[in-house]
Amino acid sequence: MTHRPQLKLGAFLMSPGHHVAAWRHKGATADLGSNFRTYADIARKAEAAKFDLLFLDDNLAVKDLDPETGARSARSAFFEPITLLAGLAALTERIGLTATVSTTFNEPYTLARKFASLDVLSEGRAAWNLVTSNLEVEARNYGTQPHLLHEKRYDRAEEFIDLVVTLWNSFEDDAFLHDKDSGLFYDPDKLHAANHAGAHFSVAGPLNVRRSPQGQPVIVQAGSSEPGKELAARTAEVVFTAQNTLTEAQAFYSDLKGRMAKYGREPDELKVMPGIFPVIGRSLAEAQEKFEELQDLIHPAVGIRLLSDMIGGFDLSAYPLDGPVPELPETNGGKSRQHLLFEIARRDNLTINQLAKRIAGARGHWQVVGTAADIADQLEDRFVNGGADGFNIMPPTLPGGLDDFIAFVVPELRRRGLFRTEYEGATLRENLGLRKARQSTARLDRGLQAAE
Amino acid sequence: MTHRPQLKLGAFLMSPGHHVAAWRHKGATADLGSNFRTYADIARKAEAAKFDLLFLDDNLAVKDLDPETGARSARSAFFEPITLLAGLAALTERIGLTATVSTTFNEPYTLARKFASLDVLSEGRAAWNLVTSNLEVEARNYGTQPHLLHEKRYDRAEEFIDLVVTLWNSFEDDAFLHDKDSGLFYDPDKLHAANHAGAHFSVAGPLNVRRSPQGQPVIVQAGSSEPGKELAARTAEVVFTAQNTLTEAQAFYSDLKGRMAKYGREPDELKVMPGIFPVIGRSLAEAQEKFEELQDLIHPAVGIRLLSDMIGGFDLSAYPLDGPVPELPETNGGKSRQHLLFEIARRDNLTINQLAKRIAGARGHWQVVGTAADIADQLEDRFVNGGADGFNIMPPTLPGGLDDFIAFVVPELRRRGLFRTEYEGATLRENLGLRKARQSTARLDRGLQAAE
Repeated sequence: MTHRPQLKLGAFLMSPGHHVAAWRHKGATADLGSNFRTYADIARKAEAAKFDLLFLDDNLAVKDLDPETGARSARSAFFEPITLLAGLAALTERIGLTATVSTTFNEPYTLARKFASLDVLSEGRAAWNLVTSNLEVEARNYGTQPHLLHEKRYDRAEEFIDLVVTLWNSFEDDAFLHDKDSGLFYDPDKLHAANHAGAHFSVAGPLNVRRSPQGQPVIVQAGSSEPGKELAARTAEVVFTAQNTLTEAQAFYSDLKGRMAKYGREPDELKVMPGIFPVIGRSLAEAQEKFEELQDLIHPAVGIRLLSDMIGGFDLSAYPLDGPVPELPETNGGKSRQHLLFEIARRDNLTINQLAKRIAGARGHWQVVGTAADIADQLEDRFVNGGADGFNIMPPTLPGGLDDFIAFVVPELRRRGLFRTEYEGATLRENLGLRKARQSTARLDRGLQAAE
Repeated sequence: MTHRPQLKLGAFLMSPGHHVAAWRHKGATADLGSNFRTYADIARKAEAAKFDLLFLDDNLAVKDLDPETGARSARSAFFEPITLLAGLAALTERIGLTATVSTTFNEPYTLARKFASLDVLSEGRAAWNLVTSNLEVEARNYGTQPHLLHEKRYDRAEEFIDLVVTLWNSFEDDAFLHDKDSGLFYDPDKLHAANHAGAHFSVAGPLNVRRSPQGQPVIVQAGSSEPGKELAARTAEVVFTAQNTLTEAQAFYSDLKGRMAKYGREPDELKVMPGIFPVIGRSLAEAQEKFEELQDLIHPAVGIRLLSDMIGGFDLSAYPLDGPVPELPETNGGKSRQHLLFEIARRDNLTINQLAKRIAGARGHWQVVGTAADIADQLEDRFVNGGADGFNIMPPTLPGGLDDFIAFVVPELRRRGLFRTEYEGATLRENLGLRKARQSTARLDRGLQAAE
């Protein structure tokens, strides 16, 4: 049993739980988004359970400003993710630390520096979930920059990520001498400028942070649009994704991994880790009851608003809620998620209200309501049948939902020989089974001369 | 004795010590800039000694790219300060956490969010040292933005800080209800947009972070130019400054505090905390010997380079090093520091080389070499004679120099009744004797409507 391939687990820590009404439930600490002590407890518990990583989402705004629905949302106030993870890094030793940061409203030098700092501080446990921003409410907080179209956002993201990786390679791994006798702090031949002048950015470098024990932060992505998949195949090391069935998951998995060869990459250099929203009971009936308890806490206006947001901001509240989901024009933001939701509505013949309630729980992600054995069955099925390398657990409530997963599902996965009882290594790359990030040599010959 | 006014102490943690050759000395951990464990030890020791705050400087670049001098500098690789302080916040309970962040290459929403997050995470201990950037080497890492002139930088900084404070007031202190029964997470009447459209920024807000137990982060500034002093008189709560004599310190202190009334502020709403570079021995001879030991570690090229940087980038290596300091044209960057250094050179009739060596130690700050009693005499003299409300200690080496200050000078200050033996409060504002930041009411009537 111990020789079976091991699946990877991430703890997705949307505060205070992934269910839209989570904060009203007894299993949730309502103010988790602003409560560092509870986050610290959660991080310690996830590490004790040997999770590979913590995963934090992000928005650059109070996302919902409607007084009717926004004031009912816990997603109104929450920590900036890198700041939170730096605090958690100090209290943990092995668990990976994944922050979502958008390329749309950031500068590459600043972003490269923050993640490299987190990576050094945590001794090689940082990961960057690269996203692009498509919300008007975020663009309005960065008003000097135009709202970028979907294609432009990816164009910028492509240049952004290459530049960030170049900056992470500024100092070679063995650049630092700290030679008190000679007085040389580093070997100047082992420091390299970026000297980047591209369509979107002009950055001289070098970065003023050293490389960490894992080389550089792990790169995570979630996009499942066409440009998103190409970017992931070329650059991502973990892909966080959303497929509701094994067939869809297998198709995505083989599609994505099949695109890697043309970039000179092996399939196992990228781990596909879909999200799963598990509602766990000692019996199926208990699990279903738990789920209904959560569903009953959803304010109707909140469900419709969430659905409208997820299809790119198109307001559905004008349509009859008990009527069918209308055909909508393609919007600028979130194309692939929009497509996914319409597929669900058509497949199960749902009204707007039914679709809203359906997605309010798992927000379009894969939802499993059942016993620990039921959930382990589903995970095992996807894992052994080429649908996933691991999973990002999206607990309905926090800390309650993660406590349940750790208490009931993790032991079940271990009984099946599918999940570790001890960390394999000290860095996130070692635990994920990724190689230490190689020093990028492509630009190493450029030296500093042009930056002088 | 216990009824004497109490002076405030900051620990300025330039890595690995304030002396330019610190890293070569046995008292320094050479790689402190990338060594979180040693920073954590330092933070715990400073907190045990009841320091008011930790203070981190910053640069948005590898400052010196000359292979001859830059490779001899420990200032080549170091943590991004907010990331580092978030880690230290998790390991401490009372000490304040001050990060230097420039307004020149940041966005107000991002900056407001990071500091508010640190402030909530630390339960009310964050402080922002507002600086503007004037280095070409930094501008080249943010190439899409033009290098701003001195006046433009302050113009931008003025708008920036007001906007950040407005964003910090997005949620009123009692906005969050967390009412599981009614389903209201916050009271929508207590959330306020910024709706800012100014010369430099257009930001709708509101900020997606709540206020901390101290209301909002403490605002720190260092500029001593004319626009810098006006900005400080209007907005700063701590001023970090550099005067080499009591007379200069008194003049600066009364000048700055005298400017506050026209902004409706009381003098004690701002604490003046000059930097001091103390070299401590059990005898004066031992202190002098220690200092010479450090001075002997300075590579000549490093001293000249540092001096050139400090006068705004003008290259002095072309002048005879044993000749007088030439009259130079006024440069764009660092006017007030340039003036200060020329004053020192004229007063003491120094050659270029002598000035370079003089400032290499304390980098233009006030330098005291002597016994603990000598140093306490000097601090007391400034404190009781209207030259300072406290001091930022700039240890020559870290951790060694701070260990010395804690072991020898802190007890001496306590014997004189000038420094606390226990923290007065839980937040930085309480310990500094500042009131909790009042909710800014000026913009509270704007509501969210215009942001919809």
